[in-house]
Amino acid sequence: MNTPTDLSADAVEKVAKALNGLLADAFALYLKTKNFHWHLSGRHFRDYHLMLDEQSDQIFATTDPLAERVRKIGGRTLRSIGEVAKLQTIKDNDEAYVPPVEMLRELMNDNKKMAAAMRKAHEVCDDAKDVASASLLENYIDDTERRTWFLFEASRQEGGNEA
Amino acid sequence: MNTPTDLSADAVEKVAKALNGLLADAFALYLKTKNFHWHLSGRHFRDYHLMLDEQSDQIFATTDPLAERVRKIGGRTLRSIGEVAKLQTIKDNDEAYVPPVEMLRELMNDNKKMAAAMRKAHEVCDDAKDVASASLLENYIDDTERRTWFLFEASRQEGGNEA
Amino acid sequence: MNTPTDLSADAVEKVAKALNGLLADAFALYLKTKNFHWHLSGRHFRDYHLMLDEQSDQIFATTDPLAERVRKIGGRTLRSIGEVAKLQTIKDNDEAYVPPVEMLRELMNDNKKMAAAMRKAHEVCDDAKDVASASLLENYIDDTERRTWFLFEASRQEGGNEA
Amino acid sequence: MNTPTDLSADAVEKVAKALNGLLADAFALYLKTKNFHWHLSGRHFRDYHLMLDEQSDQIFATTDPLAERVRKIGGRTLRSIGEVAKLQTIKDNDEAYVPPVEMLRELMNDNKKMAAAMRKAHEVCDDAKDVASASLLENYIDDTERRTWFLFEASRQEGGNEA
Amino acid sequence: MNTPTDLSADAVEKVAKALNGLLADAFALYLKTKNFHWHLSGRHFRDYHLMLDEQSDQIFATTDPLAERVRKIGGRTLRSIGEVAKLQTIKDNDEAYVPPVEMLRELMNDNKKMAAAMRKAHEVCDDAKDVASASLLENYIDDTERRTWFLFEASRQEGGNEA
Amino acid sequence: MNTPTDLSADAVEKVAKALNGLLADAFALYLKTKNFHWHLSGRHFRDYHLMLDEQSDQIFATTDPLAERVRKIGGRTLRSIGEVAKLQTIKDNDEAYVPPVEMLRELMNDNKKMAAAMRKAHEVCDDAKDVASASLLENYIDDTERRTWFLFEASRQEGGNEA
Amino acid sequence: MNTPTDLSADAVEKVAKALNGLLADAFALYLKTKNFHWHLSGRHFRDYHLMLDEQSDQIFATTDPLAERVRKIGGRTLRSIGEVAKLQTIKDNDEAYVPPVEMLRELMNDNKKMAAAMRKAHEVCDDAKDVASASLLENYIDDTERRTWFLFEASRQEGGNEA
Amino acid sequence: MNTPTDLSADAVEKVAKALNGLLADAFALYLKTKNFHWHLSGRHFRDYHLMLDEQSDQIFATTDPLAERVRKIGGRTLRSIGEVAKLQTIKDNDEAYVPPVEMLRELMNDNKKMAAAMRKAHEVCDDAKDVASASLLENYIDDTERRTWFLFEASRQEGGNEA
Amino acid sequence: MNTPTDLSADAVEKVAKALNGLLADAFALYLKTKNFHWHLSGRHFRDYHLMLDEQSDQIFATTDPLAERVRKIGGRTLRSIGEVAKLQTIKDNDEAYVPPVEMLRELMNDNKKMAAAMRKAHEVCDDAKDVASASLLENYIDDTERRTWFLFEASRQEGGNEA
Amino acid sequence: MNTPTDLSADAVEKVAKALNGLLADAFALYLKTKNFHWHLSGRHFRDYHLMLDEQSDQIFATTDPLAERVRKIGGRTLRSIGEVAKLQTIKDNDEAYVPPVEMLRELMNDNKKMAAAMRKAHEVCDDAKDVASASLLENYIDDTERRTWFLFEASRQEGGNEA
Amino acid sequence: MNTPTDLSADAVEKVAKALNGLLADAFALYLKTKNFHWHLSGRHFRDYHLMLDEQSDQIFATTDPLAERVRKIGGRTLRSIGEVAKLQTIKDNDEAYVPPVEMLRELMNDNKKMAAAMRKAHEVCDDAKDVASASLLENYIDDTERRTWFLFEASRQEGGNEA
Amino acid sequence: MNTPTDLSADAVEKVAKALNGLLADAFALYLKTKNFHWHLSGRHFRDYHLMLDEQSDQIFATTDPLAERVRKIGGRTLRSIGEVAKLQTIKDNDEAYVPPVEMLRELMNDNKKMAAAMRKAHEVCDDAKDVASASLLENYIDDTERRTWFLFEASRQEGGNEA
Ligand SMILES: [Fe+3]
Ligand SMILES: [Fe+3]
Ligand SMILES: [Fe+3]
Ligand SMILES: [Fe+3]
Ligand SMILES: [Fe+3]
Ligand SMILES: [Fe+3]
Ligand SMILES: [Fe+3]
Ligand SMILES: [Fe+3]
Ligand SMILES: [Fe+3]
Ligand SMILES: [Fe+3]
Ligand SMILES: [Fe+3]
Ligand SMILES: [Fe+3]
Ligand SMILES: [Zn+2]
Ligand SMILES: [Zn+2]
Ligand SMILES: [Zn+2]
Ligand SMILES: [Zn+2]
Ligand SMILES: [Zn+2]
Ligand SMILES: [Zn+2]
Ligand SMILES: [Zn+2]
Ligand SMILES: [Zn+2]
Ligand SMILES: [Zn+2]
Ligand SMILES: [Zn+2]
Ligand SMILES: [Zn+2]
Ligand SMILES: [Zn+2]
Repeated sequence: MNTPTDLSADAVEKVAKALNGLLADAFALYLKTKNFHWHLSGRHFRDYHLMLDEQSDQIFATTDPLAERVRKIGGRTLRSIGEVAKLQTIKDNDEAYVPPVEMLRELMNDNKKMAAAMRKAHEVCDDAKDVASASLLENYIDDTERRTWFLFEASRQEGGNEA
Repeated sequence: MNTPTDLSADAVEKVAKALNGLLADAFALYLKTKNFHWHLSGRHFRDYHLMLDEQSDQIFATTDPLAERVRKIGGRTLRSIGEVAKLQTIKDNDEAYVPPVEMLRELMNDNKKMAAAMRKAHEVCDDAKDVASASLLENYIDDTERRTWFLFEASRQEGGNEA
Repeated sequence: MNTPTDLSADAVEKVAKALNGLLADAFALYLKTKNFHWHLSGRHFRDYHLMLDEQSDQIFATTDPLAERVRKIGGRTLRSIGEVAKLQTIKDNDEAYVPPVEMLRELMNDNKKMAAAMRKAHEVCDDAKDVASASLLENYIDDTERRTWFLFEASRQEGGNEA
Repeated sequence: MNTPTDLSADAVEKVAKALNGLLADAFALYLKTKNFHWHLSGRHFRDYHLMLDEQSDQIFATTDPLAERVRKIGGRTLRSIGEVAKLQTIKDNDEAYVPPVEMLRELMNDNKKMAAAMRKAHEVCDDAKDVASASLLENYIDDTERRTWFLFEASRQEGGNEA
Repeated sequence: MNTPTDLSADAVEKVAKALNGLLADAFALYLKTKNFHWHLSGRHFRDYHLMLDEQSDQIFATTDPLAERVRKIGGRTLRSIGEVAKLQTIKDNDEAYVPPVEMLRELMNDNKKMAAAMRKAHEVCDDAKDVASASLLENYIDDTERRTWFLFEASRQEGGNEA
Repeated sequence: MNTPTDLSADAVEKVAKALNGLLADAFALYLKTKNFHWHLSGRHFRDYHLMLDEQSDQIFATTDPLAERVRKIGGRTLRSIGEVAKLQTIKDNDEAYVPPVEMLRELMNDNKKMAAAMRKAHEVCDDAKDVASASLLENYIDDTERRTWFLFEASRQEGGNEA
Repeated sequence: MNTPTDLSADAVEKVAKALNGLLADAFALYLKTKNFHWHLSGRHFRDYHLMLDEQSDQIFATTDPLAERVRKIGGRTLRSIGEVAKLQTIKDNDEAYVPPVEMLRELMNDNKKMAAAMRKAHEVCDDAKDVASASLLENYIDDTERRTWFLFEASRQEGGNEA
Repeated sequence: MNTPTDLSADAVEKVAKALNGLLADAFALYLKTKNFHWHLSGRHFRDYHLMLDEQSDQIFATTDPLAERVRKIGGRTLRSIGEVAKLQTIKDNDEAYVPPVEMLRELMNDNKKMAAAMRKAHEVCDDAKDVASASLLENYIDDTERRTWFLFEASRQEGGNEA
Repeated sequence: MNTPTDLSADAVEKVAKALNGLLADAFALYLKTKNFHWHLSGRHFRDYHLMLDEQSDQIFATTDPLAERVRKIGGRTLRSIGEVAKLQTIKDNDEAYVPPVEMLRELMNDNKKMAAAMRKAHEVCDDAKDVASASLLENYIDDTERRTWFLFEASRQEGGNEA
Repeated sequence: MNTPTDLSADAVEKVAKALNGLLADAFALYLKTKNFHWHLSGRHFRDYHLMLDEQSDQIFATTDPLAERVRKIGGRTLRSIGEVAKLQTIKDNDEAYVPPVEMLRELMNDNKKMAAAMRKAHEVCDDAKDVASASLLENYIDDTERRTWFLFEASRQEGGNEA
Repeated sequence: MNTPTDLSADAVEKVAKALNGLLADAFALYLKTKNFHWHLSGRHFRDYHLMLDEQSDQIFATTDPLAERVRKIGGRTLRSIGEVAKLQTIKDNDEAYVPPVEMLRELMNDNKKMAAAMRKAHEVCDDAKDVASASLLENYIDDTERRTWFLFEASRQEGGNEA
Repeated sequence: MNTPTDLSADAVEKVAKALNGLLADAFALYLKTKNFHWHLSGRHFRDYHLMLDEQSDQIFATTDPLAERVRKIGGRTLRSIGEVAKLQTIKDNDEAYVPPVEMLRELMNDNKKMAAAMRKAHEVCDDAKDVASASLLENYIDDTERRTWFLFEASRQEGGNEA
């Protein structure tokens, strides 16, 4: 299981832990974004339905590369729905009805937190000299900040910063 | 939430329940297949790694259409990792080490069961006069039987039916 | 004119009648959807303009296959604008001004009725053992229910089922 | 409804009227060409079936751009099958059997007339200083004359100009 | 050899037998259509040469999916030219010269019979609850009826139903 | 610098002047449209953000062809940001906050004026016998009128012509 | 041979004569450009070889559309190498060695003359009300002026207008 | 039937005979390769299943060009399954169970023989001055030797030349 | 002009002469095929119009490669329409009316002769050890024989070898 | 306007200032490069015209991503031509005639300075922990150094480092 | 030769040395991977043959970008096979027979060392402020670790870490 | 290692030796062409840089097919940089500065020699009856002569054959 590497065993462990955390949240946020994509209502249905579809695609596209980074340096990666449920920090939302603007605001906060967590993981990778994982995260942070921006602007009041 | 339809309310409820069950299992089997794709080892690593990647892609591709079928007839669909965990009948496998052939055999059995469940759901749709959902399942059953076939042949002993 | 077939003459006549009815309504609903695509106004202009364009494309794409199904089994198909006008059950709307939400609601009801009519035609095909026509309709019913869903959600009040 | 423009109101009205006339005939000729595409018979079935399919596609492709030209300068455009029926100058042909050569000759004459009508509309646009609509028509006239040429040559007697 | 399945052993046997029969005829009709594609003559050479090429491609495209359906449910499929020769019901035509219209008429009758045989096989699949095989056949029946239509129209006398 | 041409020196000068004026405004309107694309806010953020991106792309795509038309007939074209600033008639808008609807209305008026200016330039080209430049402008006028239409409809009150 | 048209017989004759003249020159200039493309030498070999290839492609691409315009309105078009030789005004250059700069200058003058001839033909078409042919020429004039510009700049002395 | 050619009648006959022999074997080897593609089993199932699919595609792709070469020079080509059965030298293998390595070895020998037969046919073509047929065979020989190589290496013992 | 080569000066001269002859005929046959493509008439207009377009494209595609082969070995190639006229052996046909079947028969004979000339040129290349030119011709001979075959079959009487 | 972020307000301000400076220079250098692309002359016209087109495309492609990075972290970005003029450090060059080599040398120096400015901005981003902006700049620095290299080599004397 | 840059001369020298070392090893490992791709044998021939082809492609794709990075900052890069031989640290393997698993193990170790060398070079670039070269290496390290992972898993014993 | 073949052992040995020689020179000339591509200078930098890139790509593309031809007939092929160095006849050029024209002349001579060597190898293949290898070389000789032509023309004095 221990793919040969010039990184130290300690470095591998720390990077693996950081990336597995991001991976669990990616699956959780993916499904939450899809949930809202499916249960949207109101005048902006098509516009937001498409936006959430693009965002969920973008989130999902991070999962295989994150998991394989862990394996390339010899770490263990996530294994099941059960393990996602245990590691995720993004909260599920099973409410029967969520108004569209609240959907956007909630996802905005989830994405903002995810960007912060990625920036932390980036430091872990840097310290571990795992520059390849760090570089991967640079792109994902940009995407995550883009999602936050779109959700912020689409959910705010004209002329103010409130929803 | 109740998209207008000429199907009866009872029909909608039964179809929604059947499809949500399949949806939860699709997510669970998707992640399990990916799990084995990531943790494979041995001489056939590349060959099986690719096979499981194709299979996980194929399973994942069923999720949005299944969920949207439910919404098109006005039902509620799955909402979160937590709900997947509650509804899934496919069992997680978090073992640290699984020999390649056992991976294939376990997935083969999961897929075989999934095909049977889909055939049951097909009858539910037929009875409910939801011919569009039924037609969708016909393709998914074919794919699932194809996965079962590949996993069966790749995991059996030369000259016999055993693993 | 009578393409050779193993279907009975009676079966051919019934299927042809059912499909020609759907065909006339497809042309009528196509032009009505385009009408609203061209005369839309208000804040959601671009979003709905695009949605109605996609929907009109989808409706139009059913016409040649439906007409050719009739010919493949030896029936006569629709011949002219005059014949469309005679057979259509979808009502023209030549109003000078229609508010956007009413446009969506009116199309939603037209599509809902079209799905019901297709489901009836599906039974006619099944009874006539014309499984190829039936299979074609399964896809069109799915598309029609998708249009109904989008129009329903985009035209309803936040928090309720009314327009 | 009156998209802002530097064209005079009178110019808009005249251009709109000319283009809506062409639009109605485009729909009528489209369906007539399809009618013959569906009910053709005889040795050249495949060849003419394909030719009429290409021609109907080409005619249909003019409809959305013509309608949107009218809207871009603030005019009202066609709204329904009923309005097509009222405005069309192309005659429906609902005959049960039309010999192939007569089909080609009839369409040839319809297309020849359509080219002449387009040339008249081009002058209306020029007079109204609507050079964008005029430019659009230049391409459609070329296409229409191409259809006339093909139908003429394919329907004439070897060595003469008669059918 | 017995891919695991929830279908009964009896169902598998019946479906396999029906599909292997269609498979043998597909190979035989493929080669016969190519034979005529190669040995055509006369004024319509290019037009019919292309038509028969498209038709042979369409027939050939059914062979691998039919054979693999049998294997996916654990049946044995066709193995050799010799087995095709034994099972085929389509008759070889090794004549040195066949007039073009007779080529079309002969293929028209072969395709008509093939559609009828497919419809019978569809019932076998339905009874066996093999909905995936049934769904596959629905598309092939449509294609076969299309070939019959084209061959019928291209080979009939203007104004009559005779060749 | 004087590319050989059969146009008179006077014609070249007039066409060059007219096209350079359009070119400066194209750069100015491009950046203004991008400005609003970047600083949009409110419920329709994604929809208008995309619309303004498409519009800025369309405007930008006119710049190289306009400049090269001038060079092909031997005129001098625009050289720098400073020259754009000097020649532009479109006004910059550096406000910190502009409500979405005002953004659309302001761009609508800019585009309306641009279409009028292009129509004037078209006459200059016609008089100069530069039919190639005139033809280019015909397409750009159509695009500009399309942008005006979209901005008008998206910014007007339901049921009226006001913003 | 006389494709039906609403243009007068006199108009057809004049347009056909003008276009056939351009057609003959297009073939002659095509081959001359290829001649230089094949027999170039010197430091800029690759650069000019590619430029002349693009230019010859562009010239060749005008031939079928020009010829078919003549046929669409019922005129006779060019028939052979012999007829090209008789009608061409572009002079052949069969010299064993032509210095690169002289090649460019000679082609520059040929193209300049061709643009002037096209502008004359454009007037003929306008007078004949053949707006479709006129529109075609507008694009070809632009291309021809582009070739002239490239050949002029590439063949002139730095700091002057001489070769 | 005798396409005009400058080849002698004797040459045509010899080339036709040689190519028809290759054609029959191509059909026989195509189906045998498919047979093994369908009935494979064991650990390398997916890898060999794909390899045999590529090989059967490659073999099949030779059939139409070979048959049309014969027709282009005026020869008669193969007509039916019956004629394939009569001319083929490749042996059918209808065994219920063939171990994977034996499948590969058997196909390896079939392909080796086919390459030798093609080399002989190449000489026949060369002698007949049919350089176009000869050139076609050069590519097919390369492909056939590639198949032989892959089958040889995949079926041999590590460290030896035995299966 | 004398590109360095290991071929003898004599070989270069002979190959250049042979290829320039083929080149002149390619241009002449190209234009003759286009001539008939433009002036066709009768029932098969579209079918033959397309066939002759494909054939003229195929002939034209040989010209640049043939000319460049000559230059690659240091020979001089064709330079002008005048030189084509001098070297061509294909006869121009400027007749006002040519019946369709005679068009096909005349082109068939031209192509048959061209194939024979190419086979001769192939021997010249072989003798000169210019295997690259020889290989190029092998493909062109195949194409030319294909054109001959199509023209032969399309122009012959049913049941005989006469036109 | 303040997109939520975990970056400090101070960090956002510094990054925004640095990126807006780069953005203004990108617009200025884009137009200067186009200016030279349009007004080039001399033997290398086509080669340098293409090179400057590629370079201007590459520069332009940085503008939207740079501006959106600023917005994603909540900063204000550039708004108008006037603001570009105020912030740009690249100098306009409105000279009537610039010799080709001087064009290249001037752009070379502009690009060299731009690379240095980007490297400074990269440090600002790093210090602000904005790793996504930093990563974006890494690619732009590579492109800018590539442009400098090409301009340097193309403008230097053979055998020396001077222009 | 000294492309202008704001990097110090010392920085350029160090980066150039580090990258040239990687470049030499890339060529050496490329050819070694191809060597094994060509001389493989045994049951997994096709699977490993494809894997090594993908890996050699990936390695080769690094060579031009690495060499051009050196040139963009004004350094000298590698010049010949002889210089590769002098600088390479990867060892050639010219053995007549290498068992498949040993091939994989040997390449695994070569790739592992290459990743370590790249990580060192990354630090050199970082210290030299050459962030563009550093960023390039981040991607190459990821690819190299991926190759190591695949080679490790494919060559290890089931249930252990040994070959 | 000895792929089964109908070629004699002696033939295999001779072909393998000839092709391995060409292979070594292909690698050496590839790197030399890249060397010059990287170290070019002067006014034609971009033009020649691109030309040498195309030429190196073309040379490189011959290596895998040449090596695999050897393996398909059971020969041993080249294994390492060391073996390339031993077999190459193309001379390395590690000079610090080579004037552009000398670069072209040197490559011209290398390519001329390579064409001659390929022609010799072609004879070896012909004698060995390995027509597939011979056919491959026919294309490579054409490409090599094209490179020689381009390098010759681009490096010669205007009006003469000297550099
Ligand atoms: Fe992967
Ligand atoms: Fe990076
Ligand atoms: Fe969706
Ligand atoms: Fe169905
Ligand atoms: Fe126009
Ligand atoms: Fe179905
Ligand atoms: Fe125009
Ligand atoms: Fe050959
Ligand atoms: Fe060849
Ligand atoms: Fe340009
Ligand atoms: Fe980075
Ligand atoms: Fe060949
Ligand atoms: Zn993966
Ligand atoms: Zn969805
Ligand atoms: Zn149709
Ligand atoms: Zn539209
Ligand atoms: Zn298959
Ligand atoms: Zn440009
Ligand atoms: Zn044409
Ligand atoms: Zn064929
Ligand atoms: Zn060329
Ligand atoms: Zn943007
Ligand atoms: Zn390069
Ligand atoms: Zn290879």
